[in-house]
Amino acid sequence: MNSKKPNRRGFLKGGAAIVGAAAGAAQSVRGQAPAIAAYSKKELIGYGERSHFVTSLREPAPGRPSPDAFGLVFHVATPLQDQTGFITPSSLHYTATHRGAFVPDIDPKEHRLMIHGMVDRPLVFTMDDLKRFPSVTRFHFIECAGNNARASHKTVQQSHGLTSTAAWTGVPLSTLLKEAGVQSGAVWIVAEGAEEVKGASSIPMTKAMDDCLVCYGMNGEPVRPQQGFPLRLMVPGYEGIFQVKYLRRIKVVDRYYWTYNDYGHRKTDPREVALGNQIGPKSVITFPSGGQKLTSPGMYEISGLAWSGAGAIRGVDVSTDGGKTWKAAVLKGVAYKMAHTQFGYEWNWDGKECELMSRCTDEWGTVQPTLAQIAKYWNEPLTKDFRVRGNNNAVHPWKIASDGSVTNGLA
Amino acid sequence: MNSKKPNRRGFLKGGAAIVGAAAGAAQSVRGQAPAIAAYSKKELIGYGERSHFVTSLREPAPGRPSPDAFGLVFHVATPLQDQTGFITPSSLHYTATHRGAFVPDIDPKEHRLMIHGMVDRPLVFTMDDLKRFPSVTRFHFIECAGNNARASHKTVQQSHGLTSTAAWTGVPLSTLLKEAGVQSGAVWIVAEGAEEVKGASSIPMTKAMDDCLVCYGMNGEPVRPQQGFPLRLMVPGYEGIFQVKYLRRIKVVDRYYWTYNDYGHRKTDPREVALGNQIGPKSVITFPSGGQKLTSPGMYEISGLAWSGAGAIRGVDVSTDGGKTWKAAVLKGVAYKMAHTQFGYEWNWDGKECELMSRCTDEWGTVQPTLAQIAKYWNEPLTKDFRVRGNNNAVHPWKIASDGSVTNGLA
Repeated sequence: MNSKKPNRRGFLKGGAAIVGAAAGAAQSVRGQAPAIAAYSKKELIGYGERSHFVTSLREPAPGRPSPDAFGLVFHVATPLQDQTGFITPSSLHYTATHRGAFVPDIDPKEHRLMIHGMVDRPLVFTMDDLKRFPSVTRFHFIECAGNNARASHKTVQQSHGLTSTAAWTGVPLSTLLKEAGVQSGAVWIVAEGAEEVKGASSIPMTKAMDDCLVCYGMNGEPVRPQQGFPLRLMVPGYEGIFQVKYLRRIKVVDRYYWTYNDYGHRKTDPREVALGNQIGPKSVITFPSGGQKLTSPGMYEISGLAWSGAGAIRGVDVSTDGGKTWKAAVLKGVAYKMAHTQFGYEWNWDGKECELMSRCTDEWGTVQPTLAQIAKYWNEPLTKDFRVRGNNNAVHPWKIASDGSVTNGLA
Repeated sequence: MNSKKPNRRGFLKGGAAIVGAAAGAAQSVRGQAPAIAAYSKKELIGYGERSHFVTSLREPAPGRPSPDAFGLVFHVATPLQDQTGFITPSSLHYTATHRGAFVPDIDPKEHRLMIHGMVDRPLVFTMDDLKRFPSVTRFHFIECAGNNARASHKTVQQSHGLTSTAAWTGVPLSTLLKEAGVQSGAVWIVAEGAEEVKGASSIPMTKAMDDCLVCYGMNGEPVRPQQGFPLRLMVPGYEGIFQVKYLRRIKVVDRYYWTYNDYGHRKTDPREVALGNQIGPKSVITFPSGGQKLTSPGMYEISGLAWSGAGAIRGVDVSTDGGKTWKAAVLKGVAYKMAHTQFGYEWNWDGKECELMSRCTDEWGTVQPTLAQIAKYWNEPLTKDFRVRGNNNAVHPWKIASDGSVTNGLA
């Protein structure tokens, strides 16, 4: 039973206890002061740590080589089910690479960014040079094109954890390109990182001059090593592989350059081209999600994240009956362009089996599709074996069993 | 020389080098791939760390006992000069206590929040109970009332580092108070923490029902131990001491309770009362700031933070001539209520001695005062010995010497 104005008393059932009926709990409130923690040590006063009771970790994406293997293809997913708010802590930001798990050890004093090619003035910037320019700080998500929910995934970390949002600080790429002076006919840039196997991506000049950022800051401090320290290119809304880490070179060119990163960005099928590069409107419920358990019937807040590579999220609908009916969720806080936006929906669980889904719409009116709609687009039967080609932004179902356990609705 | 539309070329002077004239730098861009860093280790893949080249730390506020002393009064300041954007990383969020530096080691499974006193239904909540309620995530600053710039302070960390902003996630306190049912005549609450010396503060019911939050999340993960894990009360815009850590009890009462925390909140001088509790509009330039050095004349972006306990920042003015003339800075991003808001101002330094200042105005039109205005308010002479009573939100000057070095303008 859903209700726009749930009875708040409902949150109490199976929840908070009346003091008189919970003497034990009340006692613990009035009890002895807790023990002293090791966080009082001097080094942890300089740079604090999380509680040892908090054990949430990134983990290898299923089907990808584990960190132990240090394989070339290496994907580690964010525990979205544990996240509070829309910002992923830097220590838990997903990381993915097609160039091995090894992180280059770059001294920022030695690092340089070169802009050359079809420019009037080829330039080389030190990190200090870059920090003299007017900076901006923007919230943006990054998502791996392979963030592709499958029936075998047990948790939202497995099915959707290859995306995270951070506050990115840096210089608009347009500022630097204007300094260099882009020549007529230069319609692409090629951005290259400093890894042993060079990461490089071709990016349209229109995008480069629009909203790309050359970032040295992330969530208030320097970009983390696994995210490209000391410099990362942010290409808002584009697939993760475009967000070039360890950025050291931008070449201004007159054509698309085929690079190591082009494992499928230049498609021949126009239907694939139409879905490439930019992340489609997408959302997922993070609570309740796979592996979690509702302890009792009653009031809960269904919550989750929504995002679009095309701009801001306009709205999110939630279904608690497997997609038959939909009701509007509440967006929490400002819906930033190309950033995760949190949503919430107050829900009174009656203790019966059901299926939860979320569906978002972005500022262009584009609606997140169901898997059935995607299958129809490809004119393929929607069987258990159907796999989305390219970015998978399908509506994702979570099944609630009568005992409150939550499982993947694709299974 | 200031200009609303600075010549962007100016950013180049003494900055980025033309490739042809900097073969060495260009060479380093094309050189060997850097060494592999230890961040590739398995445990750092689970929960990442910052680069070993990044060494920014919190440090004890001058004149306060050092972490070594573990004194009762213990203040550790945020390195605002190193921060990118308006969010302080949780590891660098300032921490202050009048109850010793020791951090209680609280198991969240055992932690309880009791709401009692003048309520219809005394309640005890587990952490899981609290997480069932609809949550909000809001950016709010916290500032210690003792964040009081003095002539002896060398850096902005020393003069202004006892304030930070984070994304706080939790349940509106009003939700919980409504669950308990506040009785007629109950016009205050007393919020108490679980430290050995109990932190407790009296807070007006109007504030409690307005925008206070019972927070379990901070910057995307659980509240950090030094910030009150597992539960902290957020009282937006009020002095730091009200933001009760290790929150375990809220008593609803009919009068102000005098507590251990009342080291001066109940003033007898009405001029002091008028300035108490709520942080006044305040701003500070973080670049360039004390201890930093401008490497050459030319274009820079002056940047800093502005905040007000009364609401959102409406605007910031910057002076580069010691307060004689003021020009509008640009606010970066959304100006959230009771949150640090970053500002920037493009400035062409001519290489001469000068004095930089910032002055903010909040949404109520309240303007950050100069030290002279504060002295006049108190009808005291503005000598080097003048010390602001209570919150010091004075305009802060930084002196630039002709060699580019930056020092405290109060000295």
